[in-house]
Amino acid sequence: MKPNNPVPAEQLLGQLHWRYATKQFDPSRKIDAHTWAALEEALTLSASSGGLQPWAFIVVTDQNIRAKLLPASFGQPQITTASHLVVFAARTDLTEADVDAHIARTAEVQGVSVEALAPFRASLIGGLVAAKNAMERRAWAAKQTGIALGNFLASVALLGVDACPMEGFLPPQYDEILGLGEQGFTSVSLCAVGYRSPGDPYAARPKVRFPKDRVIFHV
Amino acid sequence: MKPNNPVPAEQLLGQLHWRYATKQFDPSRKIDAHTWAALEEALTLSASSGGLQPWAFIVVTDQNIRAKLLPASFGQPQITTASHLVVFAARTDLTEADVDAHIARTAEVQGVSVEALAPFRASLIGGLVAAKNAMERRAWAAKQTGIALGNFLASVALLGVDACPMEGFLPPQYDEILGLGEQGFTSVSLCAVGYRSPGDPYAARPKVRFPKDRVIFHV
Repeated sequence: MKPNNPVPAEQLLGQLHWRYATKQFDPSRKIDAHTWAALEEALTLSASSGGLQPWAFIVVTDQNIRAKLLPASFGQPQITTASHLVVFAARTDLTEADVDAHIARTAEVQGVSVEALAPFRASLIGGLVAAKNAMERRAWAAKQTGIALGNFLASVALLGVDACPMEGFLPPQYDEILGLGEQGFTSVSLCAVGYRSPGDPYAARPKVRFPKDRVIFHV
Repeated sequence: MKPNNPVPAEQLLGQLHWRYATKQFDPSRKIDAHTWAALEEALTLSASSGGLQPWAFIVVTDQNIRAKLLPASFGQPQITTASHLVVFAARTDLTEADVDAHIARTAEVQGVSVEALAPFRASLIGGLVAAKNAMERRAWAAKQTGIALGNFLASVALLGVDACPMEGFLPPQYDEILGLGEQGFTSVSLCAVGYRSPGDPYAARPKVRFPKDRVIFHV
């Protein structure tokens, strides 16, 4: 059994308050290999519906490619100044083949037969492939990448690293530059990751959230 | 400036490995008030595109209501046995009024005028309201709740609490039972939260993830 080694609530909340959408990164500070490896592992540990992981995470460190992505991102400087840029991409159209890949992997990891997983396979295909049209499947896969992004943003903040999640970019251009389309993926959101510049004025601005009683309801 | 008090990478990854989609909760164990308050605060701290927070989180503890939700959830026992049940709901149709509410709140929290925020308002309306059709706005809001769910799952795991994220339920019935429709929201996903039963066989199963090189690409 894996050990449970929780953090204090105050430390969790402290880091979630500490994080903000970093607009100015310090271009001279790079995330060290150990920390980055941990963040990639956190990415792979994201939950997804049915465990299907209908996503790809493209880690862009090549500055030539980031320069090409810049005009497709309305020139936002985080694209080139952050230590790492992660593109969250979703399966363009989930098919039975995706379900079969997950079933095969489940059989392998858990040491069971594919045949024993037939009811699980049928429920995934029934609920996520057959019951949805192409647009719904695409929206569903995009929503799963949201779960991965939320998990990643929390993980980054917990490690004391800065990030800027972004939707302001042109997915068709990203898909073209990164060759995502031919692999059956489409870009959904970005996350620039690195360390804030000491001069970023956004760091000192109060976090804007609705009052708690506007978003949380108890019944 | 808020202090940065990160956790070690090994502790973060330990908790992300420790978490699993809990199928059997211990119905006698309730989350204490201090821990639950922290988790609600973590919910409100979720990032969202443009900061718009197009969501509502319904915390269901009333056992009579949970009994009504059970048949709308294919009878999954987590609905009634977990300590808390959170329904993640998305704005059914984001409008200019939602943007204005966020602009008003930003002005209030940051001590600036609404007029000074006019360019920000215009960019939000242009990018998220006017440029999308109703179905796209709905999918966008649902994706934002994915970010909140991912942030919440990581937060719950960091505090050593168990959770089961769920999409297997009937949103129209949830919307009806919880009165979400008339408030402009629709249910998107659920998260049962509490403590695992010592006998849950799922706790000991190896976590199924694709090999890292199938989901993470470097360029």
